[in-house]
Amino acid sequence: MLNFDFYNPTQILFGKGRIADLNKVVPADAKVLVLYGGGSIKQNGVFDQVMAALGSRSVVEFTGIEPNPTYETLMGAVDLIKKENIDFLLAVGGGSVIDGTKFVAAAACFEGDDPWAILEKRGSNITKALPFGSVLTLPATGSEMNSGSVVTRKSIKAKMAFSSRHCFPQFSVLDPTTTFTLPVRQIGNGVVDAYAHVMEQYMTYPVNSPVQDRFAEGLLRTLIEEGPKALANPEDYDTRANIMWCATMALNGVISTGVPQDWATHMVGHELTALHGLDHAQTLAIVLPSMLRVRKESKRAKLLQYAERVWDLRDGDENSRIDAAIARTQEFFESVGVKTRLGDYSLNAGNIDPILSALENHRMVALGENRDVTLDVSRKVLELSL
Amino acid sequence: MLNFDFYNPTQILFGKGRIADLNKVVPADAKVLVLYGGGSIKQNGVFDQVMAALGSRSVVEFTGIEPNPTYETLMGAVDLIKKENIDFLLAVGGGSVIDGTKFVAAAACFEGDDPWAILEKRGSNITKALPFGSVLTLPATGSEMNSGSVVTRKSIKAKMAFSSRHCFPQFSVLDPTTTFTLPVRQIGNGVVDAYAHVMEQYMTYPVNSPVQDRFAEGLLRTLIEEGPKALANPEDYDTRANIMWCATMALNGVISTGVPQDWATHMVGHELTALHGLDHAQTLAIVLPSMLRVRKESKRAKLLQYAERVWDLRDGDENSRIDAAIARTQEFFESVGVKTRLGDYSLNAGNIDPILSALENHRMVALGENRDVTLDVSRKVLELSL
Repeated sequence: MLNFDFYNPTQILFGKGRIADLNKVVPADAKVLVLYGGGSIKQNGVFDQVMAALGSRSVVEFTGIEPNPTYETLMGAVDLIKKENIDFLLAVGGGSVIDGTKFVAAAACFEGDDPWAILEKRGSNITKALPFGSVLTLPATGSEMNSGSVVTRKSIKAKMAFSSRHCFPQFSVLDPTTTFTLPVRQIGNGVVDAYAHVMEQYMTYPVNSPVQDRFAEGLLRTLIEEGPKALANPEDYDTRANIMWCATMALNGVISTGVPQDWATHMVGHELTALHGLDHAQTLAIVLPSMLRVRKESKRAKLLQYAERVWDLRDGDENSRIDAAIARTQEFFESVGVKTRLGDYSLNAGNIDPILSALENHRMVALGENRDVTLDVSRKVLELSL
Repeated sequence: MLNFDFYNPTQILFGKGRIADLNKVVPADAKVLVLYGGGSIKQNGVFDQVMAALGSRSVVEFTGIEPNPTYETLMGAVDLIKKENIDFLLAVGGGSVIDGTKFVAAAACFEGDDPWAILEKRGSNITKALPFGSVLTLPATGSEMNSGSVVTRKSIKAKMAFSSRHCFPQFSVLDPTTTFTLPVRQIGNGVVDAYAHVMEQYMTYPVNSPVQDRFAEGLLRTLIEEGPKALANPEDYDTRANIMWCATMALNGVISTGVPQDWATHMVGHELTALHGLDHAQTLAIVLPSMLRVRKESKRAKLLQYAERVWDLRDGDENSRIDAAIARTQEFFESVGVKTRLGDYSLNAGNIDPILSALENHRMVALGENRDVTLDVSRKVLELSL
């Protein structure tokens, strides 16, 4: 096991009816900015529950945070906070709303000229942030229980990440019933996103970390079992609860303790979203299977473990077990409705060079746990995903 | 899955050489009370590393916290804190030292007449506590990453528990090399303690919680694999690291999210320690196998799952698989040097009535996840353990 630090102070309030407990965790004298996305929370009752729980607190709304939240939009919230003297933020939505709120919380306290510098320094220049909490309505990114965020700047087509110890939600409310009305596409995306998060932390090389490995494998098996059920039975509470908790545990720091991490799939995927507007999970479904195929040798030991423990593949020679495990992974993504080929999204060989240029511009030229995912490797991955 | 709250703000600094990082996490201007046990930390170099890391900070020592720390001893530390104007506590040792430090931290700030009231109210009357951290030297209780504590009052032979949101360590340093010099008995005890902690949270009845179940099973399998190796090769770093992280994860709140909990074995075991001075883990090794046998029907579904997933028992009828799984559990405890019968500790049938009286006095008359472990059930368990 590698040396590690673990710290995660976010309080989780999990289960049916927990939105009412906002009244206990939002300071009674707070002036609250409620941030949300396209307004679905006004149709499904979540907004009304939030407002009822906030009671007589002073509340201002900021709406319109988009999927892959943009700097351009979020700076509007920063202006509003200053104008209205807001002292507490409440994100109500999925990972994009929560990621966006993290940026807003830090940007509102940022002392430099332009808060975009937060992205350029990956968060290392954050010294404080407004306190905030979240009400999660889409299980996927894990943003509800970590300190990371990804923000896109439209004007320069850049999608970049930051994190800071100051950017943990103080609390997150996870009520699985809020996910009952999600479109199938968003549930499928969420399952793939959580699965890919686990893989980025698990599928590297062995460092004798049986606890972390088994936790990761437990999350993967649960997603495989529960994902299709969530699509088939949208109002099955237990299934939605299990997926919600999987997605949170997939990226709250527990399974990454003491192990190497990859994240090459995410970095290549970010460019696909920035250039072509694909859903984040769609990019992961395209890139991950090819990434595993191209890097089969350096990941061989863990791929064999994955084949056995996650997919119960014990027969045949090593290469056939590995190939089968990767094929099953790809089939699983397809089975929850997320297509896995560039061609499925009208992209072709001609789109590869611009993606590689973007990676180069963002200095993503030595990715992965061994820093051996060069632009050449990324090219092979993308070609294999055509 | 049941509704739940999760909150755990303790920072973990894990790995070789991490004691030096105390310098980063103990406030620079703190007046520190270093609390420890019998002095083994002065022989194995841990004390010297701690003092070097604390540098020029003002340090006072409090030594002599015993296994099963007593109110009588700990109140001496409370007096010292007031006399010396201590503002930060650093526990250096195992679960007893850390549990004791939690009590001291709360008692030093307690506004009632006698801090024993903290135990009588199980911590619900704690409104603040001195900040504290720990350097763990014995993987076992999980106290390094939770808010619970067990304290014994010798004068009335009572061993009682409390917990409070104010009693999380701010940080804990987990350096597996500090465990290299532990006596075999303490390593064996630690493995059994961690195992029993997992079982108290796992071995109840199914509530459709696949993530939590798989995490628990992962910890159990790891303890089964690594426990005997830790005894055979005391300086195998990876093995000690895995056991240390298992013991912490076994009782930091992660695996208990959304599931019922038992804890009857612990409650009966506490009386054995209070009356006869047995090591905590010895009491668990005596009580747990019999507790599972006596409550086989109400735990049937989880026992079958445990037999299959932890012990790979898939053949034979249900009862034989369950019986074999319990027998394997008991053999495992013996294999790490912890005896599992009352007779092994010179206790006999005549000792049972006083244990039941103690349970009755402490109102431990309806224990377990279904509150059906009456005194009659506890009697059967103890008789089966003769």
